[in-house]
Amino acid sequence: MNGAQALIRTLVDAGVNVCFGNPGTSEMHFVAALDSVPEMRGILALFEGVVTGAADGYARMADKPAATLLHLGPGLGNGLANLHNARRARTPMVNVVGDHATYHKQYDAPLESDIEAVAGTLGWFRTSQSTASLAADAADAVAAAQAGQVATLILPADVSWSEGAEPAAPHTPPTRRTVDESVVRAVIDVLQSDEPTVVLLGGHGTRERALRAASRIAQATGAKLFAETFPARIQRGEGVPTVERLGYLAEQVTYQLTDVRNIVLAGAKSPVSFFAYPGKASDLVPDDCKVHVLAEPLDDIAGALEAVADLVAPDVEPALQQAQQPALPSGDLTPQNWVDVIGALLPANAIIVDEANTSGLLLPTATAGAPRHDVLTLTGGAIGDGLPTAVGAAVACPDRPVICLQADGSAMYTPSALWTMAREGLNVTTVVLSNRSYAILKLELQRVGAESTGPKALDLLDLSRPDLDFVSLAAAMGVPGTRSTTAEELAAQFGEAIAQPGPHLIEAVVPTLF
Amino acid sequence: MNGAQALIRTLVDAGVNVCFGNPGTSEMHFVAALDSVPEMRGILALFEGVVTGAADGYARMADKPAATLLHLGPGLGNGLANLHNARRARTPMVNVVGDHATYHKQYDAPLESDIEAVAGTLGWFRTSQSTASLAADAADAVAAAQAGQVATLILPADVSWSEGAEPAAPHTPPTRRTVDESVVRAVIDVLQSDEPTVVLLGGHGTRERALRAASRIAQATGAKLFAETFPARIQRGEGVPTVERLGYLAEQVTYQLTDVRNIVLAGAKSPVSFFAYPGKASDLVPDDCKVHVLAEPLDDIAGALEAVADLVAPDVEPALQQAQQPALPSGDLTPQNWVDVIGALLPANAIIVDEANTSGLLLPTATAGAPRHDVLTLTGGAIGDGLPTAVGAAVACPDRPVICLQADGSAMYTPSALWTMAREGLNVTTVVLSNRSYAILKLELQRVGAESTGPKALDLLDLSRPDLDFVSLAAAMGVPGTRSTTAEELAAQFGEAIAQPGPHLIEAVVPTLF
Repeated sequence: MNGAQALIRTLVDAGVNVCFGNPGTSEMHFVAALDSVPEMRGILALFEGVVTGAADGYARMADKPAATLLHLGPGLGNGLANLHNARRARTPMVNVVGDHATYHKQYDAPLESDIEAVAGTLGWFRTSQSTASLAADAADAVAAAQAGQVATLILPADVSWSEGAEPAAPHTPPTRRTVDESVVRAVIDVLQSDEPTVVLLGGHGTRERALRAASRIAQATGAKLFAETFPARIQRGEGVPTVERLGYLAEQVTYQLTDVRNIVLAGAKSPVSFFAYPGKASDLVPDDCKVHVLAEPLDDIAGALEAVADLVAPDVEPALQQAQQPALPSGDLTPQNWVDVIGALLPANAIIVDEANTSGLLLPTATAGAPRHDVLTLTGGAIGDGLPTAVGAAVACPDRPVICLQADGSAMYTPSALWTMAREGLNVTTVVLSNRSYAILKLELQRVGAESTGPKALDLLDLSRPDLDFVSLAAAMGVPGTRSTTAEELAAQFGEAIAQPGPHLIEAVVPTLF
Repeated sequence: MNGAQALIRTLVDAGVNVCFGNPGTSEMHFVAALDSVPEMRGILALFEGVVTGAADGYARMADKPAATLLHLGPGLGNGLANLHNARRARTPMVNVVGDHATYHKQYDAPLESDIEAVAGTLGWFRTSQSTASLAADAADAVAAAQAGQVATLILPADVSWSEGAEPAAPHTPPTRRTVDESVVRAVIDVLQSDEPTVVLLGGHGTRERALRAASRIAQATGAKLFAETFPARIQRGEGVPTVERLGYLAEQVTYQLTDVRNIVLAGAKSPVSFFAYPGKASDLVPDDCKVHVLAEPLDDIAGALEAVADLVAPDVEPALQQAQQPALPSGDLTPQNWVDVIGALLPANAIIVDEANTSGLLLPTATAGAPRHDVLTLTGGAIGDGLPTAVGAAVACPDRPVICLQADGSAMYTPSALWTMAREGLNVTTVVLSNRSYAILKLELQRVGAESTGPKALDLLDLSRPDLDFVSLAAAMGVPGTRSTTAEELAAQFGEAIAQPGPHLIEAVVPTLF
């Protein structure tokens, strides 16, 4: 078999059986080889930001990597923003980036560029040097991905097309490191002190098993729980302990951590400001507060929390969220009532992809007592993640409704995700929060202390003139769409969308919070 | 003044008075400073691929750099594909990439990434280390850009917001190197030999002055002229010498260079295959053919050609293209008749942005005798360049009609360029060639010798299921659109669009050539 065939077989044997792709000429043998490996599903996206975001969303829900297929340096570049988000989510992913044939690179053909330099900013990468070594390189890439990395395998065209390859056996998947008992005991000493203590949950520490253990700890010790600001995946809703997330704004975090003397990190990083602001601290750990590490992000976080809970709270049950949904609201849409509609109507077992940004600030409260669901958030702050992540989540979980709550400005980075939703018949209900501005930047322009806010500055934050019409945008890509300006309309349209299979889009015209 | 104000003032003083931007929080002081420098025009795009492609198109027409404003590593990543095209076009451009405050980088905040590693793949780059040095850094960046580079200035937020900056004086713009007389004489010896010789024009060698000199040389010596395959900007039409471009496919180039014994490079690179193909040569210079360099891409190419012409063809006039336009065709749209519509109706002084790809193979012949016009092409092969380049060309030349001939698949990388066209009222008529496939890849899949072409492979090259509706897409972004399926409809719609100011889009449903 040729290199491409052995590569795909190796990926499938290692459990990677979905490939999101946007191929070009140098990837044609990979594309041709898809038909020789029936277990590999190929899914076309029209832009690489969709490819990479979809692979991120897939892995967050499937807990195993998808592959991507990207076309040389420009294809990797187009995918880079959502690869950044995936890196921050510690998402396992295997990028296959086609390159010129090894002997062709010397000619500096138009598409030649330094792929390795770009791939190196993401994590593991390797240029496969021969058809004979390609399958082993692929197995190494999968192993790197399974260790929580965005792994990039650069595939020269001749390495792909040449004959003589054999599939490679997968490596044993890496396991999460068990936290030392001494660390557990040291954390218990902190928890059992009289000092106000926060347990900050991140990584897989926002999954149900870890949340239940953390809740037991909190019940028994009085520690307060927070989740990191932008979890890759947090489980919540009825029957799951509800954990508040740290705020996006430094001021919020400072308020949340008032008087705290110990922060125990369970898969989270020590809190820092998302951006720097003149005269304000970057490090958000209060003065006189110590930071203790129970578990690093890639450790067995749930196991560590359970080890703590079994010692400090052996007979304590977690505090589980009761069912509690907002009443259906009425009137013109507002930042409050649209989230109440979602909270009131959220279907069972939903996956919420939350890139609602400022429009979604009130969402967590409105959905806390909704039926059990997962929430995927914008881990790396590179906007344009929502629609693609929803694609991937829906591919990973075809039996679960995906609710994509999408800010309007951010939607315009990767709108063609809608086309892939239509092509694959994905069960995604997208609600675009159309406030016709980069609302976050209007807030930030004040917060950074910029002196003047003249008309030229404000114009760069304004998405009206012309207004974007998301119903037409959806129609352009085969997704049925509606528009709502009142809570009643949104409720009716949302209810109808989630009752029907396949993708739908609702443009919700919601004023800005600021 | 603060750093941002001094930076913008320095850019303006150096002649850079347009900034295409897609800012974020770390760029807020730059945005705020725009109002303090009235000469700087800020233009918002909704995606960084539009920002960078627009700056490329602007500079190709204005012959001076625009600035871009990009948001940290993800913003640069989103812009990378069109920056690749700009690098290949040797477009002068100054990217301003906002970064975290210098003291904030140590905290590895969510948006932290290795910006320098990515910027280094493009050309000149520098992270400005202090407010005091920022303006001088900006002057250096402009000088690097003026030397034909994509220059990237990384701007930490605190360097931007701190006070105490002063504008820096611009450097003297670099001039193009004059080619040595000995080189001119050596090339003349080649041209005056009896061997079949080709003069291959590239860079500014495809502008009118160079074309006129080259035509005189060809008339006098019998040398054959070709332009490089994808010129950044080629001038053509009535009254300008018509020069055939080298083909995209290696087979075409081999045919074009049959029996050639000398290739004289005037701003072009020696011909190589765009991609490698199994068993086929990458270097397209025929056996027994010598390559001679008259002028490097950044030399004074026109001056060198004139020096040659004045010696070999002192009394010879260039062969100028006569007016000759196709008759208006009729019937269902075909790859031939749509280009005849464009050729028949092309307005005077147009700028054609050609990303028609396979649909446009017959375009050069149909437009050769049209009124004088410029053509901007996809220099780096990174698709998604057409709509943004049209934005930039229209900003640079508000009094000229811009005709954007855009393949459907490629349009979907940067569709939000349409919104910027609407916002700025740009006089761009976009014709989307809707063949509902990645037609080039269907051809390439055969050419690379892929053995199987099963249904999964073909599915990844297919843009139907669902069909894209470009009229709705345009409407979503405030651009009036129509659809044509016959030559008569296209002629009527095109005629109406070019007669009206502002942007228009026509979806021309044209079957594939293959």
